Amino acid sequence: MGEAQVSLEHLFRVFTKPEHKDSKMAQIEQHLSDNILDFLSQHVVTKKTSLEEIEKDFSDSKVPESPEFVSTHAESLLDKLVAHSVNTYSPTFIGHMTSALPYFHLPLSKLMVGLNQNLVKIETSKAFTPLERQVLGMMHNLVYDESKDFYDSHLHSAKRSLGAFCSGGTIANITALWVARNKILGPQEGFAGVAKAGLAAAYRFHDINHLGVMCSKRGHYSLSKAVDALGLGRDQLLSLPAPNQTLDPEKALAAGKRYQEEGNKLLAIVGVGGTTETGHVDPLHELADVAKELGCWFHVDAAWGGATLFSSQYKHRLKGIERADSVTIDAHKQMYVPMGAGMALFKNPEDANAVRHHAQYILRAGSKDLGATTLEGSRNGMAMMVYSAMHIFGRRGYELLIDRSIEKAGTFADMIANHPDFELTTSPTLSLLTYRVCPAGLQEKLKHADEATKDKINEKLDRLTVIVQKQQREAGKSFVSRTRLEAPEYPTNCITVFRVVLANPLTSTQDLRNILDEQHKIATGTKLYKELVKVVGEYD
Amino acid sequence: MGEAQVSLEHLFRVFTKPEHKDSKMAQIEQHLSDNILDFLSQHVVTKKTSLEEIEKDFSDSKVPESPEFVSTHAESLLDKLVAHSVNTYSPTFIGHMTSALPYFHLPLSKLMVGLNQNLVKIETSKAFTPLERQVLGMMHNLVYDESKDFYDSHLHSAKRSLGAFCSGGTIANITALWVARNKILGPQEGFAGVAKAGLAAAYRFHDINHLGVMCSKRGHYSLSKAVDALGLGRDQLLSLPAPNQTLDPEKALAAGKRYQEEGNKLLAIVGVGGTTETGHVDPLHELADVAKELGCWFHVDAAWGGATLFSSQYKHRLKGIERADSVTIDAHKQMYVPMGAGMALFKNPEDANAVRHHAQYILRAGSKDLGATTLEGSRNGMAMMVYSAMHIFGRRGYELLIDRSIEKAGTFADMIANHPDFELTTSPTLSLLTYRVCPAGLQEKLKHADEATKDKINEKLDRLTVIVQKQQREAGKSFVSRTRLEAPEYPTNCITVFRVVLANPLTSTQDLRNILDEQHKIATGTKLYKELVKVVGEYD
Repeated sequence: MGEAQVSLEHLFRVFTKPEHKDSKMAQIEQHLSDNILDFLSQHVVTKKTSLEEIEKDFSDSKVPESPEFVSTHAESLLDKLVAHSVNTYSPTFIGHMTSALPYFHLPLSKLMVGLNQNLVKIETSKAFTPLERQVLGMMHNLVYDESKDFYDSHLHSAKRSLGAFCSGGTIANITALWVARNKILGPQEGFAGVAKAGLAAAYRFHDINHLGVMCSKRGHYSLSKAVDALGLGRDQLLSLPAPNQTLDPEKALAAGKRYQEEGNKLLAIVGVGGTTETGHVDPLHELADVAKELGCWFHVDAAWGGATLFSSQYKHRLKGIERADSVTIDAHKQMYVPMGAGMALFKNPEDANAVRHHAQYILRAGSKDLGATTLEGSRNGMAMMVYSAMHIFGRRGYELLIDRSIEKAGTFADMIANHPDFELTTSPTLSLLTYRVCPAGLQEKLKHADEATKDKINEKLDRLTVIVQKQQREAGKSFVSRTRLEAPEYPTNCITVFRVVLANPLTSTQDLRNILDEQHKIATGTKLYKELVKVVGEYD
Repeated sequence: MGEAQVSLEHLFRVFTKPEHKDSKMAQIEQHLSDNILDFLSQHVVTKKTSLEEIEKDFSDSKVPESPEFVSTHAESLLDKLVAHSVNTYSPTFIGHMTSALPYFHLPLSKLMVGLNQNLVKIETSKAFTPLERQVLGMMHNLVYDESKDFYDSHLHSAKRSLGAFCSGGTIANITALWVARNKILGPQEGFAGVAKAGLAAAYRFHDINHLGVMCSKRGHYSLSKAVDALGLGRDQLLSLPAPNQTLDPEKALAAGKRYQEEGNKLLAIVGVGGTTETGHVDPLHELADVAKELGCWFHVDAAWGGATLFSSQYKHRLKGIERADSVTIDAHKQMYVPMGAGMALFKNPEDANAVRHHAQYILRAGSKDLGATTLEGSRNGMAMMVYSAMHIFGRRGYELLIDRSIEKAGTFADMIANHPDFELTTSPTLSLLTYRVCPAGLQEKLKHADEATKDKINEKLDRLTVIVQKQQREAGKSFVSRTRLEAPEYPTNCITVFRVVLANPLTSTQDLRNILDEQHKIATGTKLYKELVKVVGEYD
């Protein structure tokens, strides 16, 4: 059953002719088109199934020997995969940065796959190449706001590049630091440059021990990958403590000076434009000054927050981003594009040449092939999704979405702050916030307790947060994530907090109220909560 | 006209409700579903439009201020983008590795985008995580054919990894060499390891000048990117001459010994399983011996050729691949999956731990989050496409496709060899071949000419090939690419050749005959051809 014929005719058919309109695959498509929310709520199972249970369906390590009918396979996808995937469209899934997408991306994804262009070179992408360059130009314009002349002369130049389109923010951050490394240790009299000669030779030539990258402890984990992959070493990621969730410019300057005095060179300061954990924005303008004083590159990781620039009201929260040498923005975050649309933008259109490379059969010198300055090779046409979204929303559409998310985060923050049994641990700068359960009275107690008592109480609160987060996730109605954070009031230890990302436009105030109520109910039902309430009395 | 309303209602609509069934976007979808070949032949313009002309449509650097109706935008996409994209489904587009795709990927792409999972962590991908692990396991099995016990204990292990799913072969190659570098310069008594301490410290500890990667001159350009990005430096890519298109094991051994005697360390030998330019396969078994003798890593870049393992008849052409420490395979090549499905496989499931990293809010120690050992962070659910294709084709379906491509390449090679005015420059090992125009008589002349004459004639033949390739491309009916190659008969200079990739199952023998006829017609119509014919006389 379900075994298709192995014949050339069959193979030709799957290349050229769709299944019948009543087939299972066609039904799935139609349902997705008609009402994706209904499709998801009908097929994604909300009851908890353990990962171990799910793994059983994906445990055969042999490539299936015989073909399967598309419709048979479609049934099996629904049962095994869709049923146990995450409903990212759910208004109560507010734990991560993935959310509902505008429906037009569904037909566009079909068009993208139908065209199957490869953007590494013009010969396999043609109009997609200028399209991608335009998308990068528009994003560059959003960040740097250069003159029309500037864009007219650089947008489609074979010798310059306003940015690199990437599969995601991690590759964008790595690309930016790769460019920075190759530029700062570039060719000069007596040295071929790090790209050719390698890192050790560059250190010998410049007589340095190490090359470092500085960020706050809230810097994204991709920076740690970047310093590893690029050969600097993870120890050279100078991540400064950030009790207030941001990188302190004075401390950054002092640490940078010390580092350089010790015989090292600071490659870059990375300011974050919306940390992944709390949505805080580093003081970018001040950090640009620090980078200037230290003579290093200034990169801004605005993978999450970059889209805030669409908002007239809130874009000032990223003030200073226009002074960055490079900026990362993910369109698959607050630009509501499907997963896989990261961008690294370069202030100076010559900078990407620090990583330029050529090959005989493609990327020939003088060509406009995009692959000449990207870390990736073959790439799909995701830039079309960004292009379309920018046209269909327009700046004003995005502005409305951004404003609404930030305001919703404010509303939720108030809701938490006003609830006696919750404590807001970080206020939203953008649309992220963190909080925890903390029974009425205990917040006040904590303020006046000594360090040992604080630690003891926090340890219990940490456990409570983990219990509530897990139980809520397993109940399947809502999802809030959790993380561990420094907090200015508790210098000795990190605390565990709920983490909320208010990205989904479908999330209502009532949804947020329900989520909080559910957490409260779970919390108050635990033994630990009762112990904590007792603690309030004990310290009275 | 075309300006949509900026309102919350409008924005909600694009998130929740599709356009009317008669809308332009819905029509595009329907046409793609009904008959993609017809859609492409109707909308992709074949007449030549210069890139400069196309760029005019993508020259505005301002983000559009106001929203646009989806249908208005769909019209504009058809006119500006689709019209000037490349028809990769065309049976006469045989110049690159992109081809027609089986139609089921169109509805699947909609499902993938509709689910919008993020595979960096289980919390945003759930069943997609075991699915991706299974896909990697199946590919691992195809290459390494380990025991059932092996897969049962490693497939879903939180501490091990059979491979890394990547956006493409370039990232896969970089990932493999990153793992190799971190393992070979790993932590040991007195040294924290290169991942932590950096490359320069590793060189100091091991007292080496350089770390190198060896391949033949036919190695993919991604290897050059890899040694640059990883900090080794492009000069440390030891790419040995390959007049016969493959890496000579004896020369590799000698060069490797010399390199190590000079105070350097060889990190890896990269054997290619299907070079991008000619489809040749390096002598993998012999190179595995060389790597063993030199004490270095052995990586096989089988981005193109890996799928040959599905064929009982031809898999022996990759003999020795099972001895590689790591292997790159792109599913978006001969597995007919949409662009964006590269994989790096690791023989030893512990090896990927050399790049393992953790973060507080995700990728926690002990989790099965896939992002802990990949270079990329957020990633989409492309693994589903591979999973589905493996089920719908089955091994036997892929076998049929692979066998047919290789046989078609043989047929085309015969056609060229038997044509008096064409010269087959490399025979197909897999489904790639190269050739050039060479007027009857001239091939014989060249054999007996002195070096200077050969160079003179080849220079003209090179120009002729370029002219023919360009004119054919511009005529818009067919596309063959070109490259420059070493050839054993011409030791002093590379020659320019046509490059053909027979990947598209829709390409018929008649298509190939027509392509050759068209080239012949273009060639014989040139002044240069007449000059070359005269040359034959001159040397008589």
